[in-house]
Amino acid sequence: MNFRNKLEKIIRKNNSLVCVGLDTDLEKIPRFLLKKLDPIFSFNQAIIKSTYDLVCAYKPNIAFYEARGEKGLRSLKKTIAYLRKNYAEIPIILDAKRADIGNTSGQYAKAIFDYWQADATTVYPFLGHDSVRPFLEYKNKYIFFLIRTSNPDAKMFQDVKVKNQPYYLYLAKKVKRWKEKNTGVFCGATYPKELRQIRQIFPDRPILTAGIGAQGGQAKLAVKAGVNKNGLNLICNSSRSIIYASSGKDFAKKARLATDNLRKEINQYR
Amino acid sequence: MNFRNKLEKIIRKNNSLVCVGLDTDLEKIPRFLLKKLDPIFSFNQAIIKSTYDLVCAYKPNIAFYEARGEKGLRSLKKTIAYLRKNYAEIPIILDAKRADIGNTSGQYAKAIFDYWQADATTVYPFLGHDSVRPFLEYKNKYIFFLIRTSNPDAKMFQDVKVKNQPYYLYLAKKVKRWKEKNTGVFCGATYPKELRQIRQIFPDRPILTAGIGAQGGQAKLAVKAGVNKNGLNLICNSSRSIIYASSGKDFAKKARLATDNLRKEINQYR
Repeated sequence: MNFRNKLEKIIRKNNSLVCVGLDTDLEKIPRFLLKKLDPIFSFNQAIIKSTYDLVCAYKPNIAFYEARGEKGLRSLKKTIAYLRKNYAEIPIILDAKRADIGNTSGQYAKAIFDYWQADATTVYPFLGHDSVRPFLEYKNKYIFFLIRTSNPDAKMFQDVKVKNQPYYLYLAKKVKRWKEKNTGVFCGATYPKELRQIRQIFPDRPILTAGIGAQGGQAKLAVKAGVNKNGLNLICNSSRSIIYASSGKDFAKKARLATDNLRKEINQYR
Repeated sequence: MNFRNKLEKIIRKNNSLVCVGLDTDLEKIPRFLLKKLDPIFSFNQAIIKSTYDLVCAYKPNIAFYEARGEKGLRSLKKTIAYLRKNYAEIPIILDAKRADIGNTSGQYAKAIFDYWQADATTVYPFLGHDSVRPFLEYKNKYIFFLIRTSNPDAKMFQDVKVKNQPYYLYLAKKVKRWKEKNTGVFCGATYPKELRQIRQIFPDRPILTAGIGAQGGQAKLAVKAGVNKNGLNLICNSSRSIIYASSGKDFAKKARLATDNLRKEINQYR
């Protein structure tokens, strides 16, 4: 099954647009887990077990695993294998934000889709079409092009005017013309106006968004701006405000509560 | 010693602006190496042994190692350890082209500088200053901001006009104002005009360039455009045309020859 079908199916089944960001940082997980053989994996496993019926996707950001080198990457491998084995219907978006010239992009695509076995990933379109083609050749996989990021300084280079419009809109319109259809876009939930413009350009495709929660994005504005006309295809990632909802023994329970609260809040505005 | 001093020292010692790109692909290395325990490491080791006195840096692109998963990353770890142990005076630029919001960038910086122990890396400035700050905090390390890439479609999004100038120049001028000084820039050698403009903005800082050789960049134009007024601080990366100069038993010897030819060609125009 391709990514898009998988996504739409789970959105309906779990009645959820929430994606849990598995940005697991050894310094932030409950201290009692540190005595486990693989604290990062144990943490992820507990979070997944506690939230799988409330989400439409999981999104590990690979940076958090790379930071711990070989060990970290092993925890990620185990996390992905665990998801595949037990919750195969939930798509895995491996957030890696890659971009390089074609020859090198091909290697990144291999890493993300063949080695990591992710269903989808994030890519900068900044180097042009020849640079992203190797990703797009994985027809059953999905690529979210980063169009407008969620951080405060995003304005600096993404909002400058190009042909009477902000650069991110110029990007979005060009990307839309590329013939491959296994692509969606990313826009930060902290910028609902921008998200609305991007939804207008891509009326139906999946949009990945982030920043509701720790980064201060408001659910109401972002959801109204980002869902398609059927109230679907907006993937709302939340990491820190879910996975670190508690630093005690009850962290998984509190993560479930935070996920469900966010799910319900989002569903109000779909 | 910080990166910049290390670089200037080795440029003078080896009288070279050549950086060898260790973009090692299992499918392209000589077949007889496949019977080795770690063919990628054996290949890299032979290339390094054969070229160390002719280069100013080595630049592994991490994508080629990531593509092979855990195994590939172990080959990279061994390659970096081998360089550190035997050729500590040669800087290692780990080409990773990372970019994410600040919180995540911090994890990437940890990966690249703490785990991988690289001297320098490549980063997209596209998300603005808050996104790159964690990299810049490693004061002895060096960050090359990707300003203008070397691929044919780079034009698509990097040359659009912003305030009466191409986007890449707008990026370069803004980046120049950032107070941190442990930064240089990247511009493809395939675009000598653009390289010249970027050198004018950064009259003295190290510039990383690539594409002389396999990508068709002409040494003469690129070198004249890119060196500083003392004929220094241009790092000319070449990968495929050096490391795959021969696919036979003589690959290391031929790599040396290709490196030396490029070195001499570049030195003519410094």
